[in-house]
Amino acid sequence: MDRILLKNITLDGKYTDIFIEEGRISSVYPHSASRCKELSESYSGTKVIDCSGKVAMPGFVNMHTHAAMSLLRGIGEDMSLQKWLDHIWRVEAHLDESFVYWGTKIAALEMIKTGTTTFNDMYWFPLPAREAAAEMGLGNALSFTFLDNFDEKAFHEQTQDCMATHEAAKSWGRRSQFVIAIHSVYTVSEPAIIWATEYARKNGLRIHVHVSETEKEVLDCQKAHGGLSPVEYLDRLGVLGPDVTAAHTLWLSDRDVEILGKRHVNCVHNVNSNLKLASGLGFRYDDLKSAGANVCLGTDGCASSNNLDMLETMKTAAISQKAWTNDPSTLPLQDLLDMATVNGAKALGMKTGRIEEGFDADILIIDPDSTFFLSPAPFIANFVYSAHSDCITAMVAGGRLVMMDRRAPEEEEILTGGKNELRLLTEYSNN
Amino acid sequence: MDRILLKNITLDGKYTDIFIEEGRISSVYPHSASRCKELSESYSGTKVIDCSGKVAMPGFVNMHTHAAMSLLRGIGEDMSLQKWLDHIWRVEAHLDESFVYWGTKIAALEMIKTGTTTFNDMYWFPLPAREAAAEMGLGNALSFTFLDNFDEKAFHEQTQDCMATHEAAKSWGRRSQFVIAIHSVYTVSEPAIIWATEYARKNGLRIHVHVSETEKEVLDCQKAHGGLSPVEYLDRLGVLGPDVTAAHTLWLSDRDVEILGKRHVNCVHNVNSNLKLASGLGFRYDDLKSAGANVCLGTDGCASSNNLDMLETMKTAAISQKAWTNDPSTLPLQDLLDMATVNGAKALGMKTGRIEEGFDADILIIDPDSTFFLSPAPFIANFVYSAHSDCITAMVAGGRLVMMDRRAPEEEEILTGGKNELRLLTEYSNN
Repeated sequence: MDRILLKNITLDGKYTDIFIEEGRISSVYPHSASRCKELSESYSGTKVIDCSGKVAMPGFVNMHTHAAMSLLRGIGEDMSLQKWLDHIWRVEAHLDESFVYWGTKIAALEMIKTGTTTFNDMYWFPLPAREAAAEMGLGNALSFTFLDNFDEKAFHEQTQDCMATHEAAKSWGRRSQFVIAIHSVYTVSEPAIIWATEYARKNGLRIHVHVSETEKEVLDCQKAHGGLSPVEYLDRLGVLGPDVTAAHTLWLSDRDVEILGKRHVNCVHNVNSNLKLASGLGFRYDDLKSAGANVCLGTDGCASSNNLDMLETMKTAAISQKAWTNDPSTLPLQDLLDMATVNGAKALGMKTGRIEEGFDADILIIDPDSTFFLSPAPFIANFVYSAHSDCITAMVAGGRLVMMDRRAPEEEEILTGGKNELRLLTEYSNN
Repeated sequence: MDRILLKNITLDGKYTDIFIEEGRISSVYPHSASRCKELSESYSGTKVIDCSGKVAMPGFVNMHTHAAMSLLRGIGEDMSLQKWLDHIWRVEAHLDESFVYWGTKIAALEMIKTGTTTFNDMYWFPLPAREAAAEMGLGNALSFTFLDNFDEKAFHEQTQDCMATHEAAKSWGRRSQFVIAIHSVYTVSEPAIIWATEYARKNGLRIHVHVSETEKEVLDCQKAHGGLSPVEYLDRLGVLGPDVTAAHTLWLSDRDVEILGKRHVNCVHNVNSNLKLASGLGFRYDDLKSAGANVCLGTDGCASSNNLDMLETMKTAAISQKAWTNDPSTLPLQDLLDMATVNGAKALGMKTGRIEEGFDADILIIDPDSTFFLSPAPFIANFVYSAHSDCITAMVAGGRLVMMDRRAPEEEEILTGGKNELRLLTEYSNN
């Protein structure tokens, strides 16, 4: 594991040195050239990075994605949701472990380029996905996903598969966690929802579930379950709690908001996906926050939104929220930053999202020497509203230098691996 | 003027050579190594750029901005419109020619980095603004702006100032045009609107005007002008026509849409500004297009939206349009690209926005070798929805190579000039 000294970096407006050991931030102190010299002499092999003129920010926590779908981006543009799903499903029928491995590698490369150091994933084949994420240095929460389409045989197969995958995941390191995903109320049977929830609680695993993404989902659920909304239905089954990440939570009644708040559920706003698929605009940020929910931010998968850029997502989240609520002061910058960092860390129970001693060394190194930062505004305003992720010139993730001068190690090989998978998939889909 | 050969660039999926002379595209033909050799030997001093693996796209036309406000970005975040205006006006009271020159230089540098080769500007001091734009190589339409606040003395002073500025602008070259701006119906008196319109028509100048940006603007206009909306009122005064660029056109009645269509007005969607300032969501794209208006795209000034990135604006325009119309198929990619290129060119009567013989050489050179383009989707889908402007690695504007390897000439000096102006302005504002 690298020992790294970020020398003379600007943190909260102050010149700072950040010393990183064993994957964690071991000290943060006002810049001192002599102390830097001392440190690098005491610990030979310390990688000293001169960060003069650069700014440190915590890495982002992307709280809802389907990482390996990086290879499926843009395959159904300007389509209705139903046509889009047909496309995706036709192609996904051919997915295998190799596709998920390389898709997750590509996704991790993109997350590194765009400032994400930790991600919460819901997809297939978590074992190869974890291999890819760990190789790239990203913190990760990867799920076994229940999706039985109300088929009893599928349900029983998935319980077996889940337990076997969980067993294999027990060797995962500190920066990875195994999660139980319940795809949604419209794709998972009641016995499977109950089994998955009980299994998660018994084993201390977190839960990840799509909730109330579209109006149709809510109407169908009410019809199927005696007028209960997806939130009410999941709550009746005992699913909801502070260990649950609910993705989308877009079509909510007042009662839904109350429940999500009371259960301290982690609600993920996937704004780009919600807009692009025309799922809806009205994310109830203020209400959810007031009620007690922990509101986080996510990109969703590349097939819907079409990248994994949390900085872009932050801007869209803020400006669309101001527009639909008709209030330019809603979702202020600090809230936005919290949604993209500490709130996600809290949801996953991981020590990331802050640049403080003892936290995981998940740090963005930003170059503000461009037109985008040339303004009387605070750094954070320029970072979110004006700049793009290419201002992030280097990144430390879990104490490893995973990008320097906008280049990640083995970038060529990763792109080639992705291209090969894409070629295979295209051949399958055309046959 | 440079003679440039873009060798082996991908254009519409085909390997192509593009030869540029005298600022224009003089030939476009299928790639031929021998012909390239021949050309570069026949014309000594030809700059040959090997574009193998790169993709050509036309440069963007930003149809509504206030370029020099680049230096005012982010000065009023998360504020209501009224508070924001107070901030802006307090600072703008100190503007001078030097501020506009350096603000426009900074803006031009940012436009170059983000793919814009031509811009339609509404601001103060068009003479230094034009100097800055021409030095940077960008096509430009720069206005003298009427804003008399219903003060007769101001109106008369502005007519004198307008004529003098127009006289000075007669020496401008082919890539610049002098425009008459009428700030808005809520800031310009009726005599000034009529005078400015007649002056423009008499002299063959285009008109640029803010129209129906907020609901308040519409309600106030109806109150002041016997129930007429801004569109109806401007039409009654004879302002509207195909030589008019109407910025925002957001709060429109059916009758407004009909008028804008019938008069073939160029309507500019400034989506990021509309969202961020909570002006509104409901841009009537389909209706305006069907009615006969020419719909274009703009970024607005950096103080409201907070950058000049047309590629970012294209994505926000598309996804927010899909969301509020509840139709994922609206504003398809080709329409979006037209809004950002050829529609703007048509509005300004400039031969740009296409890569064809005889057109101005306004060309983006794009590097698709990244995760963002690694997908089965068409190039344009990845360009708009997945990538960011840093994929534009080089740019030819008006036949000049204005960026290579993401660096523009004299970048340091421009940033320093901007910083100096910003320092002066901050001192003024604090006193």
